[in-house]
Amino acid sequence: MERADFRLWQDKFERLRSNKIFETIVIAIILFSALVIGAKTYDEAVAYSGLIDVLDYAVTLFFIVEITIRIAAERRFRDFFKNGWNIFDFIIVVGSLIPVDSAESMLLARLLRIFRVLRLVSMVPELRVLMSAFLKALPKMAYVALFMFIIFYIYGAAGSLFFREINPFYWENVAVAMLTLFRIATFESWTSIMYETMEVYPLSWIYYLSFIFFSAFIFLNMMIGIVLDVMQKESSAFDREQGIGDANDIQAIKADVTDLHSKLDGMTEHIRQLTERHPK
Amino acid sequence: MERADFRLWQDKFERLRSNKIFETIVIAIILFSALVIGAKTYDEAVAYSGLIDVLDYAVTLFFIVEITIRIAAERRFRDFFKNGWNIFDFIIVVGSLIPVDSAESMLLARLLRIFRVLRLVSMVPELRVLMSAFLKALPKMAYVALFMFIIFYIYGAAGSLFFREINPFYWENVAVAMLTLFRIATFESWTSIMYETMEVYPLSWIYYLSFIFFSAFIFLNMMIGIVLDVMQKESSAFDREQGIGDANDIQAIKADVTDLHSKLDGMTEHIRQLTERHPK
Amino acid sequence: MERADFRLWQDKFERLRSNKIFETIVIAIILFSALVIGAKTYDEAVAYSGLIDVLDYAVTLFFIVEITIRIAAERRFRDFFKNGWNIFDFIIVVGSLIPVDSAESMLLARLLRIFRVLRLVSMVPELRVLMSAFLKALPKMAYVALFMFIIFYIYGAAGSLFFREINPFYWENVAVAMLTLFRIATFESWTSIMYETMEVYPLSWIYYLSFIFFSAFIFLNMMIGIVLDVMQKESSAFDREQGIGDANDIQAIKADVTDLHSKLDGMTEHIRQLTERHPK
Amino acid sequence: MERADFRLWQDKFERLRSNKIFETIVIAIILFSALVIGAKTYDEAVAYSGLIDVLDYAVTLFFIVEITIRIAAERRFRDFFKNGWNIFDFIIVVGSLIPVDSAESMLLARLLRIFRVLRLVSMVPELRVLMSAFLKALPKMAYVALFMFIIFYIYGAAGSLFFREINPFYWENVAVAMLTLFRIATFESWTSIMYETMEVYPLSWIYYLSFIFFSAFIFLNMMIGIVLDVMQKESSAFDREQGIGDANDIQAIKADVTDLHSKLDGMTEHIRQLTERHPK
Repeated sequence: MERADFRLWQDKFERLRSNKIFETIVIAIILFSALVIGAKTYDEAVAYSGLIDVLDYAVTLFFIVEITIRIAAERRFRDFFKNGWNIFDFIIVVGSLIPVDSAESMLLARLLRIFRVLRLVSMVPELRVLMSAFLKALPKMAYVALFMFIIFYIYGAAGSLFFREINPFYWENVAVAMLTLFRIATFESWTSIMYETMEVYPLSWIYYLSFIFFSAFIFLNMMIGIVLDVMQKESSAFDREQGIGDANDIQAIKADVTDLHSKLDGMTEHIRQLTERHPK
Repeated sequence: MERADFRLWQDKFERLRSNKIFETIVIAIILFSALVIGAKTYDEAVAYSGLIDVLDYAVTLFFIVEITIRIAAERRFRDFFKNGWNIFDFIIVVGSLIPVDSAESMLLARLLRIFRVLRLVSMVPELRVLMSAFLKALPKMAYVALFMFIIFYIYGAAGSLFFREINPFYWENVAVAMLTLFRIATFESWTSIMYETMEVYPLSWIYYLSFIFFSAFIFLNMMIGIVLDVMQKESSAFDREQGIGDANDIQAIKADVTDLHSKLDGMTEHIRQLTERHPK
Repeated sequence: MERADFRLWQDKFERLRSNKIFETIVIAIILFSALVIGAKTYDEAVAYSGLIDVLDYAVTLFFIVEITIRIAAERRFRDFFKNGWNIFDFIIVVGSLIPVDSAESMLLARLLRIFRVLRLVSMVPELRVLMSAFLKALPKMAYVALFMFIIFYIYGAAGSLFFREINPFYWENVAVAMLTLFRIATFESWTSIMYETMEVYPLSWIYYLSFIFFSAFIFLNMMIGIVLDVMQKESSAFDREQGIGDANDIQAIKADVTDLHSKLDGMTEHIRQLTERHPK
Repeated sequence: MERADFRLWQDKFERLRSNKIFETIVIAIILFSALVIGAKTYDEAVAYSGLIDVLDYAVTLFFIVEITIRIAAERRFRDFFKNGWNIFDFIIVVGSLIPVDSAESMLLARLLRIFRVLRLVSMVPELRVLMSAFLKALPKMAYVALFMFIIFYIYGAAGSLFFREINPFYWENVAVAMLTLFRIATFESWTSIMYETMEVYPLSWIYYLSFIFFSAFIFLNMMIGIVLDVMQKESSAFDREQGIGDANDIQAIKADVTDLHSKLDGMTEHIRQLTERHPK
């Protein structure tokens, strides 16, 4: 193939990629693929398993073609991978190519194909905004989670140390105790666990109440605080881009006042000259 | 009927509609209708079912007359339907006209009559404010809900894929699994479901904990964020209307500084002329 | 008693009332009275019931003396009742005077004496701030509660209409159904109630999920929004009083810019005069 | 040892203390110590208990050496204790020195060694920020907690007064009743407790619903409000330090406008002089 031909095809692909109808078809195929995935979980689907497999192959094929078109539409191959959403789509499509032949990998292959539904997130702009807000909140959340993990670890080790003889199902070791503590943090039948240990250690309610105070109140509230913080920053960044909001008015006033200064400096110079020309 | 006569009646209706006493009567009838609806649910009501039916007809009749008056009070028939709250009232009143003769539609007819209580929302201004705040938050909430639906769908399909053999009651297909996941998101006896699957897949706690993290923390917090955002915007919009608050002061300063500029420009011109008249 | 004598005593009472030591004693007696109330709930207290009754009378007597001093310290009797906290204290003290002789009123009398603990709120300034923040949020909360009551009433009437035959314990009439709905709103064993009705109406999950969406998400979030709003307003009102914060800086700039205008007007007048004295 | 020698060692310690590699080693030892603590909770650990004890002694020794270096690096001994985090570390290290010989103190000694994991908080800056945010929120939270304690006490005393005959397990005395109320506040099987008392007092749902309203809604929301307030203040304090944000722009404008005033005053003086030199 000549180079000019290649460029010609590339232009065609580029136009196709940004075509509204093409986008709608892709979204429709994603939704259809989600329905096929859902249908497979019904008992009645066994009768149509041949048809479903064919549809599954067709969807896989379509996704490969679509992602190939989008890669080909880029001037340079590596440009495609500079966009996080492209990498996201690429991993999902390639991940679903794992063969279903062997019985062992079949569950995994089916699981990977379920993730295709996530492509909807990269196709709908409003969902991309939510996703990026979530990703922005993630680092701060990770530190709150680390902090909480330390609290859980300490309470877990202490719980395992004191309560394991009482009920090994809940307190056998630090890992099991931490799972029990997560359960307590969700308030799920936590009182029966507490009443059990209170028979041996009557003051163990302090352990539970202090833990609930730390986990449910501090942790949850910090999480809320982080999410709200990210949302407000997104909102004011949007205002700034649009040139509206208090922050922009303040910036405009600042610039205006600076202008006033330079004007006044000019005037002062003029008046100084005038004064010099009229000696006392 | 002559046109002048019609106009006369219309004026009367218009005055009646905005009459405080008329409004109070309407609210009283709505409350009375709510009581009748509630009374019907008591066993003792069977003895008075004849009386209750009569009251029910009376309330229905009153509502038809009232909405007719409000429609007739409009200069043009279609103006009535330009107000969302009028459409809201109209649908509720017309909806409750479905006949109760046939046994099949009787439940539906009684259900529709229950919705009459909602008319209270359109009559009390403070409730209208809450309702419109809710409606403003709805589009953004819909996207968060869509995002959450995708998460639920993926977890539901994966859960049905892996856990259906363990307990079909919870994981039979993607729909049943999603209902189970909603239950887990509300922390309702979720640990018993987890312990059950952990006997087969010891690592399945990752499935539950990650799901709870996504649903309870992210989803709930985004919802809180959206509601707070809408409330703050309502509050600052109210301040702007009233001409109070920081935003208004900033606007005033901006205008003042702009005025300063034009004054200084005028002065500069004067001084320039003065300087010209006094050559060195 | 002479008028001068009375005035003398009043001054003494006034000094006593604002005395730090007196305040500390009152707080100590309130705490002691709380301990007495708590002690009475223990089985072991029966042996000391004579002593406890004596202590109870002593506390009651002290409170009467204390409130009499505070009333007497006011220049005019009715001034005392202009302060909400005084009325609050007065009602609590007078309420606990109901005699305990008859067996019927004994429970009530003991209940009323429990409320004495609330006097702590009126004595500690930080708690008064929290209480008044709560009272400020109350009217708005009342409307959200009314809105929610309408939602509960509609769902309650509908639930009683459809589900009463399935389980009268939960859905017997609209009142019982609303209590069941409150239980569902707190996520307390709501799935067993849902599974029960889904056997007859397989689509009844829509009823539960939509209700949870309205109640748990909207209602709770609006409540959070209102509390945060009240807290922020309290916080910025405090800043304004103290003369700090952005709002004060903006006010100061506004005044400064207005000063600039009047100065410039003065200068313009001077220059105009100068220009007139130098005709072309 | 000569004084110069001592100073020389001190400098070495100071350099060591702020050495990145040294810090990383300390963090690694803390993590290792956490793993040892966790490992001890497993049944399989009994076989290696000798090894674990040796590791435990080694970690204890390392911590003593490390804190000695950090103390020695200070110019004056008492400077070390001016930093809250140093006191925090010191207490944890000294606390874990309690001997494990006697069987009684063994549990306590092991418990104290668990707290070593908390040293991670003082080593990771992001966790220190979270910790200090938490400590800043604590005083306000303490008042909300006190307010809530009063509510719990009143409801607890009233509950014990009315319901103790119904079920002493939940309502035996004010302390037991308060634990039951905490359970109700977390919505844990609260309806069964309510249904039990409603059989004797049919109106006792008022007790439960009003309590849930106070505790779950008011208390939780105030907690959220306080945490958010602290977070926003931290965030704007950070902005101020960095010299960014609206507050700084407003400060800059304020200073600029003040400058304008002094310039104008200078000009007015010049013009006044000019005018004087040109009498009418």
